[in-house]
Amino acid sequence: MALIDKLVVCGVGLIGGSFALALRKKKKVGHIVGIGRSRESLEHAQSLGVIDEIASNWASALDGASFVLLAMPVGQTDAVMEAMAPHLQAPTIVSDAGSTKHDVMASIYRLLDANLPRVIPAHPIAGNEKSGVQAATATLFQGKRTVVTPLPENDPAAVGQVRKAWEACGATVVDMPPQDHDRIFAAVSHLPHLLAFGLVHDLAGRANAELLFSHAASGFRDFTRIAGSHPEMWRDICLANRQALLGELDQYLGELALIRSLLLSGNGSRLERLFEEARQARTKWGEGQSVGKKSR
Amino acid sequence: MALIDKLVVCGVGLIGGSFALALRKKKKVGHIVGIGRSRESLEHAQSLGVIDEIASNWASALDGASFVLLAMPVGQTDAVMEAMAPHLQAPTIVSDAGSTKHDVMASIYRLLDANLPRVIPAHPIAGNEKSGVQAATATLFQGKRTVVTPLPENDPAAVGQVRKAWEACGATVVDMPPQDHDRIFAAVSHLPHLLAFGLVHDLAGRANAELLFSHAASGFRDFTRIAGSHPEMWRDICLANRQALLGELDQYLGELALIRSLLLSGNGSRLERLFEEARQARTKWGEGQSVGKKSR
Repeated sequence: MALIDKLVVCGVGLIGGSFALALRKKKKVGHIVGIGRSRESLEHAQSLGVIDEIASNWASALDGASFVLLAMPVGQTDAVMEAMAPHLQAPTIVSDAGSTKHDVMASIYRLLDANLPRVIPAHPIAGNEKSGVQAATATLFQGKRTVVTPLPENDPAAVGQVRKAWEACGATVVDMPPQDHDRIFAAVSHLPHLLAFGLVHDLAGRANAELLFSHAASGFRDFTRIAGSHPEMWRDICLANRQALLGELDQYLGELALIRSLLLSGNGSRLERLFEEARQARTKWGEGQSVGKKSR
Repeated sequence: MALIDKLVVCGVGLIGGSFALALRKKKKVGHIVGIGRSRESLEHAQSLGVIDEIASNWASALDGASFVLLAMPVGQTDAVMEAMAPHLQAPTIVSDAGSTKHDVMASIYRLLDANLPRVIPAHPIAGNEKSGVQAATATLFQGKRTVVTPLPENDPAAVGQVRKAWEACGATVVDMPPQDHDRIFAAVSHLPHLLAFGLVHDLAGRANAELLFSHAASGFRDFTRIAGSHPEMWRDICLANRQALLGELDQYLGELALIRSLLLSGNGSRLERLFEEARQARTKWGEGQSVGKKSR
């Protein structure tokens, strides 16, 4: 039985496309409409069977819509909500897939305040350094988490529908206050992306860049995989969450200052202890991850 | 036909054990002797069939030895060479697998100067965050590189034997001056390890560490994989190569200062350009890697 009669996906890329594919595969959706900036990319999504129809404006997209997923880069949130607002009908549920939440919430209160009960911010914790609808798969969210950060004004039934949609995609849904969300992901996701982009950018600008890259091996490959991520998406995330991200960056710079002093003073025993503590924490986490995967 | 009649491996862990297993699989070695600090670990290696015999002292290990591979953490180089020197016979070839080369070279000139023609420094570019002989495999070096940094005093025939041994393990052998080696690997290997250890250490020390780790996903997993590496080995590498590593760290801190200023000023367009340049370089490198793998 369809959970969603008419699904509208704004930004049919890796995340929006995978959401559509997963729901279609589970037969949880009737008709899927795509909307976005790039006609070409929407036509590609349609030719791949990810969406059934391309909407050329929000009036037609939102007419009779059951569920809208906003999956464009978070920097477009204001413009998109402004365009949607006049056409949004009372029964339509709106959710998003943004990697930052306080900026999306601010936009919701400013632009979609008439529909607060049915606008539910969320963030699927899944991704890939590849972007675009060609990278979308029905299994992207399988065994992953989706964080939902409900507003006090949200209708519990609407929150329940958002949960069910993500669960149908194979995700485990977790609730969290938006402030906690933004601080946690600044530390475990946004900062690592910044560090990986920074390392590759630093090396790529050297006169001997080609020589350096020619000797990079598997450690470098994994460390820098996320430096292949979508630049506009990550620009928007960094700007939207920059307070928390700057806090994390400064804390990390303090860690590097400590490591630098241990190197300068040749303090092998403290360096080894630091590495050992990191190894233990990483190994423990990695084991938890594998166990988690197996049990699913 | 055996390339090596009697192989001596000092430090039968991931690297030394994999070298032994690969040569044995290709029938390039007669008898394999292990020597090292830990009797227990050597017994484990023998029980796994990685070595045939455990030597309890260098006199017996080096008696009639054709080839010695030094594969213990580089911090032990001096002590090992000092112990070897009185027993090293003229025909024996000595090589190493150290991740840093100028410190190993300095030890060679100081302690094995009587055998310079047949002591050839090298570094197989293969590893794993798992360490110890239980992680050793005959295929670890398959399709990987081994950098050989010959000394001017080396006998070309002995250098040829070292090349042949690594090629038998499936590696491509590359020659390089040791100074270049240490600078290149500071940038593409040692610094990323330091950064990954630092991030995990930073997060693991927080009051909310468990909450943070519980939300870490695949980007974090890959970025921090190398933080599971061997602490003593990495302590030794960092200390042995600390001049080049400090240079790289300071350059990277300059990159982070730039990124921090772009975040603080909210300069989205420069941030996006930096991410885009990193993405292009990373994607180009990744494609070259896959092509390289396929062609082997």
